[in-house]
Amino acid sequence: MIEMRSDTFTLPTERMVSAMTQAALGDDVYGEDPTANRLEQLAAESVGKPAACLMPSGTMANLAALLVHVERGRKILVGNESDIYLYEAGGASVCGGAVYEPIPTQPNGTLALDDLAAALPPDPDDPQFALPGVVCVENTHNRMGGQVLDQAYLAELRRFASGHGLPVHMDGARIFNAAVASGVPAAQIAAHADSVQFCLSKGLSAPVGSILAGEVGFVAKARRFRKMLGGGTRQAGVFAAAGLVALTSMVDRLAEDHQHAARLAEGLAEVDGIDVDPKSVTTNIVLFRVTANGLDDEHFLHAATQRGLAMSEFGHGRIRAVTHRGVSSADVSAAVAIVADVVREAR
Amino acid sequence: MIEMRSDTFTLPTERMVSAMTQAALGDDVYGEDPTANRLEQLAAESVGKPAACLMPSGTMANLAALLVHVERGRKILVGNESDIYLYEAGGASVCGGAVYEPIPTQPNGTLALDDLAAALPPDPDDPQFALPGVVCVENTHNRMGGQVLDQAYLAELRRFASGHGLPVHMDGARIFNAAVASGVPAAQIAAHADSVQFCLSKGLSAPVGSILAGEVGFVAKARRFRKMLGGGTRQAGVFAAAGLVALTSMVDRLAEDHQHAARLAEGLAEVDGIDVDPKSVTTNIVLFRVTANGLDDEHFLHAATQRGLAMSEFGHGRIRAVTHRGVSSADVSAAVAIVADVVREAR
Amino acid sequence: MIEMRSDTFTLPTERMVSAMTQAALGDDVYGEDPTANRLEQLAAESVGKPAACLMPSGTMANLAALLVHVERGRKILVGNESDIYLYEAGGASVCGGAVYEPIPTQPNGTLALDDLAAALPPDPDDPQFALPGVVCVENTHNRMGGQVLDQAYLAELRRFASGHGLPVHMDGARIFNAAVASGVPAAQIAAHADSVQFCLSKGLSAPVGSILAGEVGFVAKARRFRKMLGGGTRQAGVFAAAGLVALTSMVDRLAEDHQHAARLAEGLAEVDGIDVDPKSVTTNIVLFRVTANGLDDEHFLHAATQRGLAMSEFGHGRIRAVTHRGVSSADVSAAVAIVADVVREAR
Amino acid sequence: MIEMRSDTFTLPTERMVSAMTQAALGDDVYGEDPTANRLEQLAAESVGKPAACLMPSGTMANLAALLVHVERGRKILVGNESDIYLYEAGGASVCGGAVYEPIPTQPNGTLALDDLAAALPPDPDDPQFALPGVVCVENTHNRMGGQVLDQAYLAELRRFASGHGLPVHMDGARIFNAAVASGVPAAQIAAHADSVQFCLSKGLSAPVGSILAGEVGFVAKARRFRKMLGGGTRQAGVFAAAGLVALTSMVDRLAEDHQHAARLAEGLAEVDGIDVDPKSVTTNIVLFRVTANGLDDEHFLHAATQRGLAMSEFGHGRIRAVTHRGVSSADVSAAVAIVADVVREAR
Repeated sequence: MIEMRSDTFTLPTERMVSAMTQAALGDDVYGEDPTANRLEQLAAESVGKPAACLMPSGTMANLAALLVHVERGRKILVGNESDIYLYEAGGASVCGGAVYEPIPTQPNGTLALDDLAAALPPDPDDPQFALPGVVCVENTHNRMGGQVLDQAYLAELRRFASGHGLPVHMDGARIFNAAVASGVPAAQIAAHADSVQFCLSKGLSAPVGSILAGEVGFVAKARRFRKMLGGGTRQAGVFAAAGLVALTSMVDRLAEDHQHAARLAEGLAEVDGIDVDPKSVTTNIVLFRVTANGLDDEHFLHAATQRGLAMSEFGHGRIRAVTHRGVSSADVSAAVAIVADVVREAR
Repeated sequence: MIEMRSDTFTLPTERMVSAMTQAALGDDVYGEDPTANRLEQLAAESVGKPAACLMPSGTMANLAALLVHVERGRKILVGNESDIYLYEAGGASVCGGAVYEPIPTQPNGTLALDDLAAALPPDPDDPQFALPGVVCVENTHNRMGGQVLDQAYLAELRRFASGHGLPVHMDGARIFNAAVASGVPAAQIAAHADSVQFCLSKGLSAPVGSILAGEVGFVAKARRFRKMLGGGTRQAGVFAAAGLVALTSMVDRLAEDHQHAARLAEGLAEVDGIDVDPKSVTTNIVLFRVTANGLDDEHFLHAATQRGLAMSEFGHGRIRAVTHRGVSSADVSAAVAIVADVVREAR
Repeated sequence: MIEMRSDTFTLPTERMVSAMTQAALGDDVYGEDPTANRLEQLAAESVGKPAACLMPSGTMANLAALLVHVERGRKILVGNESDIYLYEAGGASVCGGAVYEPIPTQPNGTLALDDLAAALPPDPDDPQFALPGVVCVENTHNRMGGQVLDQAYLAELRRFASGHGLPVHMDGARIFNAAVASGVPAAQIAAHADSVQFCLSKGLSAPVGSILAGEVGFVAKARRFRKMLGGGTRQAGVFAAAGLVALTSMVDRLAEDHQHAARLAEGLAEVDGIDVDPKSVTTNIVLFRVTANGLDDEHFLHAATQRGLAMSEFGHGRIRAVTHRGVSSADVSAAVAIVADVVREAR
Repeated sequence: MIEMRSDTFTLPTERMVSAMTQAALGDDVYGEDPTANRLEQLAAESVGKPAACLMPSGTMANLAALLVHVERGRKILVGNESDIYLYEAGGASVCGGAVYEPIPTQPNGTLALDDLAAALPPDPDDPQFALPGVVCVENTHNRMGGQVLDQAYLAELRRFASGHGLPVHMDGARIFNAAVASGVPAAQIAAHADSVQFCLSKGLSAPVGSILAGEVGFVAKARRFRKMLGGGTRQAGVFAAAGLVALTSMVDRLAEDHQHAARLAEGLAEVDGIDVDPKSVTTNIVLFRVTANGLDDEHFLHAATQRGLAMSEFGHGRIRAVTHRGVSSADVSAAVAIVADVVREAR
């Protein structure tokens, strides 16, 4: 099976497995796991922040960040097409009494400053309005096809947010894809945010774990919420060891995933009955539409799976294919052939 | 001062004041205030529901309804231009751990069923999606200019919601304006909802109080939340007495407010530099734009206030003027003259 | 019926009713009700605080205070026999994500500082512990028989709390009973707390309303929560007018209620089969036990009600009788006679 | 260092490490990790429940259970000396709007049914009372010295709870210690609860992971909350593999930890200046007091640590020492000698 549903399917590398067996361990709830501690230090440095905390998932990293940034009753200004808004089960309302305010997402993954401005209360002293608490951005932007957010935009967003006393949280689940694709170091990207989350899983291939980074005081508070949410683990070093390998040796190879995605998009563009814009593919995510007559998405995906290619429905009539370490160059060619085959049969 | 900022400025009538002084009283927290009990019974009947509960405000009535309908973590499908979403401080997220999902509001105040369908999770078993919990409608619709929702639409909406196992809550703060304008009894309008809130203040002129009505079990639960929120009051009969007068004698006169609003809109339509569509005015709310060169909304409102006419900024470049018992026929004529005067001076 | 279940059954005086009919009114949600504004100013002064906010109930006043003082996840250190803990439906956990930590209540209504100290986390940096957020006291203390808290104790408590960075909230629902009984002005009593709540209903006889007072910034935040909870009302002046009469003319007469309670206790002490300690009765609450053989509390209360005397079961095998403006000197004598009668018949 | 602070310090066995390197993996957020799935099935069977869900920690397992069992505003009846109440940061109030009601813990770790009955509202229809939602028990009971709860008591508790419509949740973090010590299979112990949590870490020595087990519908809901809280992990099989080894091969050896604890207690009982009751030690936890003149707990622990023995302060003037796989028979002897040495030096 060629697995293109998500880069979350990446398996740990041999080096990771080996590291997991040799990791120095302790009880991380007591702060005594040396491997977890080393990972947190290195992870903080990797995004240029003073401190970081290891989390079991990106969902918890984002949730803990929002709980720290946002008092109950405040609004989270977040893209209507963001993973935080769509895929994280409303956790910040449940656990934090915060109000999500979805902002239209631009095709390039940004939130227009005018739209953000419109979400600010006309009169902050009027108690009928929930006040804003944080602005979230996602980089790369999953549902906008893995787009890298422009550095100039991020700088402008930060100025806007600071001007209104609002922190910026970056859901950088795939921030290293952004860094590799743009040639801008992750720390420079994250510099436009008060806090940043990134995943050690996904393209970096660790089995478990995400990082939340920010100022020392911020991370101390997030660590408290991690415990409350149940994310404090014992010998965290077993998966932190894999995370260390991910962080130190798996970043550069993301370029290969990007090349594969580009080649996949170019291949699909040649297929009659498939609508895709190769120029929009800049990292490891390819979004396309099935336009072949009489072939709906469900049947298309089913037929592809039958032939050994797994992809996923992605809303708004789109299919998503994601490249990652488990997808080889040959897999890309095979995937194009399978799609062509499915479309041809459907005629 | 001609007060057109809101119909919430209505003062109690002499009959209300007199009723307040003569009301039989008891401790309503013990359920022993006879006037409050009588009001609740009559109010339930007025919207055709088996039970009702007196609340200090429409905000609390809406909040209690949402707390009963929606488990923590579920979504409130609510118009992005609704009062519940915009003006109630996010209470259902804070007090209920619920997630607001704003749905685009159509120009006629409805929510398109397609937009509601898009807010349902593609896969309800997938735990990353918050599940829907309730659909809210507002009737008449304040920010859409006091529009009355179509009965056929409401029937269709209810079928849609029921088909997905979702209750419908109607924010009928001005439901009697809808009833009077459309000639459809309030009970028939409320029949399309599982629960309905309406205000005894606003056009009905009571000083304090709103009603939440629905099934017996629903209201029993809402009454628990009223106590928890701090809405249980002692000798509630003092304001319930005014509410009884409002409900029994103030509904029909809303027709006069509607005529005044229509006449106001027609008058304003004659003013060069004012943009208003008289046909869109069907109840007691007039929305218009100041198009006169060099006159921004703030200056316009200030100049009008200086001349004795209070109106309010209403977002999207609109001004709102509301008619009510405190606005006489002569006031309407005077208001048109003041607006014309302000616009003329600005030239 | 002699109504001794609670002082919440007090009816408004003629002067209150008259004031309600003549009150200058406005929309209090806009901050424009002159009567409500005047009441808030006077109420703040009466307890020596810079600011105050009118609330529909003591429950909401306490809840809003806790929401301002306590971040989500922090502990409310509160007496296990306090009204906040027992009778307010857990609102601060629901609406505020706060954790109630009940502290043993001493017979004199105080919380021992040692018990409070034991509720502080051994290590505040250890994220497994919820951190403390506020200390609550109740004065007079309802379930401890209306006891007045000692001023020296309150001073010591405040020092303790401040020493740990914790604000003190005083549930002073009956603070004027404390003031009248002890001869210490309410402002001096409230000086030992950062915030104080008191009821205009109960002994002061207003039909509706409680006050939350504190620093200007504190009250501004509480006012926001009032709106969110649904406690913002329109022409609040109608009940604020009664509250003004309550505050300015009803305080001194509480002494009469205290004399009545003392006389009731002395009378009951003479009844064979009733256990009461007259020395413990210092304000308007009398707690006693029915010790007559074969007479349980339920039958006792039922038999008394049959004879025209209403009292209430109060936990721990106690009956509560409360004196107030609706209980005359003759009623006290009659109540003693009825109790004696019921006990005698039971033999 | 002889590590007796907690059994959470156990390191994975070689077999665990080996299993982790060979585990079949998938994306557990998609439900496709075969190792995690197998562990969940086996874990459910081990406690006799139809279904189970793997959680990153016992804290999350308990929290998810409470979120499923308890509607917002309901009370969690839980021991005042339980880990859920003391060490889990108040998560159920923050994330669930639930109210903790601590019940006195008996010396044998049980909650007296009379105390539970006293926590039920005198009148469930009275909205001022928070209603009960769940009863929690802890077995073995950590802060009561690792005591095993009596089966007859558990049966009686379940009858009581069911009689009041309340589910029972068992925090069985160390349920296998209870099973081994009592000779009663874990499934028979868990049969007295609607849901049960147990840790794969602690005595069973897995590095990460706890299990929440119960009915199919219950576990499905808990799984949703796991995702919301951020406990859904990707290749969960890496730690699930260790959990499988823990569950299938590490239970019986807990007997050894119990023998060590007994021997430790007997040894300490011989030391002049140490107060311990060896009969109270039935599993792997030893609680004792330092009674030697002039030796406070802090200095005692510091001096022991200097000599290579780590134990922990445990409240109420007690020291806790926990035995586990990392503590050998020789370590026990050495620990007794170190304690004796420290006490002697202090004289």
